Amino acid sequence: MTTSGENEVLALFTERIALIKSYEEALAVLYWDLRTGAPRKGMDVRSEAIGNLSGQMFKLSTAPELGDWLTVLEAPTTYAALNEVHQRLVTETRKDYDRSVKIPPKLYQEYVVLTSQAESMWEEAKGNSDYASFEPFLDKIINYTNQFIDLWGVKGTRYDTLLDMYEPGMTTEQLDRVFGGLREKLVPLSAAIAASPHQPETGFLEQTYAKDAQKKFSLFILEQMGFDFAAGRLDESAHPFATGLNPGDVRITTRYLEGDVTSALFGTIHEGGHALYEQNIRQDLVGTTLATGTSMGIHESQSRFWENVIGRSMNFWSRYYGDLQKHFPGQLDVPVEDFYRATNVVQPSLIRIEADELTYNLHIIIRYEIEKLIFNEGVKASELPALWNAKYKEYLGIEPPNDGEGVLQDVHWSGGAFGYFPSYSLGNMYAAQLTDTLERELPNFWELVENGDLLPIKNWLTDKIYQYGKLRTPSELIEGITGKPLDPDYLVEYLKKKYTGIYKL
Amino acid sequence: MTTSGENEVLALFTERIALIKSYEEALAVLYWDLRTGAPRKGMDVRSEAIGNLSGQMFKLSTAPELGDWLTVLEAPTTYAALNEVHQRLVTETRKDYDRSVKIPPKLYQEYVVLTSQAESMWEEAKGNSDYASFEPFLDKIINYTNQFIDLWGVKGTRYDTLLDMYEPGMTTEQLDRVFGGLREKLVPLSAAIAASPHQPETGFLEQTYAKDAQKKFSLFILEQMGFDFAAGRLDESAHPFATGLNPGDVRITTRYLEGDVTSALFGTIHEGGHALYEQNIRQDLVGTTLATGTSMGIHESQSRFWENVIGRSMNFWSRYYGDLQKHFPGQLDVPVEDFYRATNVVQPSLIRIEADELTYNLHIIIRYEIEKLIFNEGVKASELPALWNAKYKEYLGIEPPNDGEGVLQDVHWSGGAFGYFPSYSLGNMYAAQLTDTLERELPNFWELVENGDLLPIKNWLTDKIYQYGKLRTPSELIEGITGKPLDPDYLVEYLKKKYTGIYKL
Repeated sequence: MTTSGENEVLALFTERIALIKSYEEALAVLYWDLRTGAPRKGMDVRSEAIGNLSGQMFKLSTAPELGDWLTVLEAPTTYAALNEVHQRLVTETRKDYDRSVKIPPKLYQEYVVLTSQAESMWEEAKGNSDYASFEPFLDKIINYTNQFIDLWGVKGTRYDTLLDMYEPGMTTEQLDRVFGGLREKLVPLSAAIAASPHQPETGFLEQTYAKDAQKKFSLFILEQMGFDFAAGRLDESAHPFATGLNPGDVRITTRYLEGDVTSALFGTIHEGGHALYEQNIRQDLVGTTLATGTSMGIHESQSRFWENVIGRSMNFWSRYYGDLQKHFPGQLDVPVEDFYRATNVVQPSLIRIEADELTYNLHIIIRYEIEKLIFNEGVKASELPALWNAKYKEYLGIEPPNDGEGVLQDVHWSGGAFGYFPSYSLGNMYAAQLTDTLERELPNFWELVENGDLLPIKNWLTDKIYQYGKLRTPSELIEGITGKPLDPDYLVEYLKKKYTGIYKL
Repeated sequence: MTTSGENEVLALFTERIALIKSYEEALAVLYWDLRTGAPRKGMDVRSEAIGNLSGQMFKLSTAPELGDWLTVLEAPTTYAALNEVHQRLVTETRKDYDRSVKIPPKLYQEYVVLTSQAESMWEEAKGNSDYASFEPFLDKIINYTNQFIDLWGVKGTRYDTLLDMYEPGMTTEQLDRVFGGLREKLVPLSAAIAASPHQPETGFLEQTYAKDAQKKFSLFILEQMGFDFAAGRLDESAHPFATGLNPGDVRITTRYLEGDVTSALFGTIHEGGHALYEQNIRQDLVGTTLATGTSMGIHESQSRFWENVIGRSMNFWSRYYGDLQKHFPGQLDVPVEDFYRATNVVQPSLIRIEADELTYNLHIIIRYEIEKLIFNEGVKASELPALWNAKYKEYLGIEPPNDGEGVLQDVHWSGGAFGYFPSYSLGNMYAAQLTDTLERELPNFWELVENGDLLPIKNWLTDKIYQYGKLRTPSELIEGITGKPLDPDYLVEYLKKKYTGIYKL
């Protein structure tokens, strides 16, 4: 900063950011509350309150004065004199600002109404397996999205503009390469597993597991992971989620199924991974919009690292199976190896959210390829069911009996969230690549897991990833930590090694 | 409305009110969340979020355009053409608007900082029984309050200006009369009770009562009262409270003490009374600032009606004691009469919040008389401990051994809430006066209670009070329902009759 005028602008700018962050905190509490037990009859008023406050936040985020302040702070000598937090805050805010102000309010309003109707329509269409009733909505959403892409400006391909919203810097070119490599190797691996005579026994999992004991074990495992209960809480909801209001208040939920002890367990570890990320963001980012995960993909890498790499490993269960048994006396009488194998069954299936660690990626690749066809090749909504079914047949060897279990299964498109799906598999790939580095930098990594000494692992991740929040981009993080750009071979190698053991390939 | 211009102003005005109401809803959720389990480490950020959103709401509530709209809508012919909801909304909003805009923002800001510091200082001073450390803060708060009174304008006496904030229309003149009458009759009644040889046995209450069973019984009683669980919830907090976000979402809390089965029980019924009020407000008031209780006193009349008039009656326990016994097998083996008498012990004590139904009013009268002296007679903060102790000796026959159990016991003054205390006793007086009418209009009132048929009572109260929210003033309600202005004799007669029976006077 060179003059007092610029200092004043910086103060106004950071004050505005803090104000916007306060709205984000309030809205996050309102949503969390809605999903964890808000009374049914208050829903309409609550929706209106959320709409009103979101509108107010949008106004503050797109106000002309904010644009003026950004212009002042972006002047080369001014920018150069800012500290790294303020520099990043300017860059990030400019990106969001431009994205928001480029959409005419009227157009955006129409789109919000459309997607809100479409979500209800989707739910009905899915229930009735009636794609025809949803198609006109999807068609319109695609049209609006195309208008937005034009307004935002195309970088690379049209679909790149969408990808960049969820995974900053990610391109179709890069994803084609990594997903191509992944698909090529996972399809035969999945087939080899299916053909193996050594299929795990899972019958013993089908018992009634008391909810209270499940809850206690969930809390125990979170504590073991280093989840800070003075800076977070665990609740129940129909669909598990994590929400970081601020690093001192990170909330996760899980769902206890009495007939399935693994659902809440792995759900808790998954959301716990998201929570560790949010709880360990640097204090100097608190109160800024940088105090959150840097991308959907990096966030998902942490939930999946803790859930799959750690939580579904033999080393982990060598340590914790005894504790689990104690929580359910007389119920888990199989050896730990059988439990481990049962929680790692691979089985091509129709439904993404029920898929295993390996075939999950094929579900994502199918969605990625279809989204790319829509925005880069002009494929129409009417063509999607046939496309979907053909790809399931090709990659997973199975075909949906109806659209409810096929193209209609996910909520994402009804809300216009095109470009989001790749994050899930990016999470798996990032996790595997990070694990490779972790194994080298903490040579006793698996020994630590086997001893339940998880804190050094949490600390390593904090040091390398968590603390930075949005201060580093996904590729800065991955290349900085692993020395390489994203490479799908780490995931392939990890899966090959793991499943060769389990299925004796 | 006569012109389209005025219709447009009405639309802008009601839209602003709805927006303000959305902030109120969000802030209420944020506070509720803080008090029911928000993680400790998120408190600072949460406080800042609350401060920021409150500031935004204050801006919207004091914006010049709102004043302009009010002026348009207040024009006699325009106002006359408004419906009753809009008329009342204009009147109420004008009152709040004028009150807020008359205080210079800088002065208010200083005051907010002062009271926030004072509350911490008060907590420490109370713990150490050290009035001297709190006195300078109280002195400043009194000075600020006097400045506010000057800015708001004195109506009647200076203290009337404060009373009007919590009980619209209430005056010192009226309170002198009713509190005078009350004091004159309660002091000898309290003395007669103390002298009675027929003191209730309470020893059996001192047992360990399982928290789970207490919780179940609390939920059962709320259901019996007609609390709508689809429009509300019961949680736990250190200090029980009720908060109505909107009539479809009314939340209450209670506190379970394992050593005292009556604490959570009567606390739940008390907050349940507040909740019934808020849940049964008319649908056409939802989304406006009229969708809440009309005053602190009327609100308190409902909590105290349900807690004391119904909940501490022999008729109530004739019906519900068996249920209570079943929740605590083998623990409550005394006859119902003994239980009834034990929950109605009268005992002059030093601490207001632990006081019984009768002497409670004397605690309030003491505070009322002291507040009046401060603002109408210029009594100084330094004089309060001596004044306090003398009045406790005179009215209750006991003297605090220290200021922690005396003048420092309540939080109210540290937050500048002068004029609030009378509401508590107004609640008791309103409740007794309403009960008199209720007994005449529902001749089988006590039979209904004895049969656990509480819904006709809830419906009567809804019809007469709850539905109107802030659409009627306290005196409009009381005079409209009972045909008379507030009269303390109803409470005196109610207490005399009740305690003559219990203490065989």
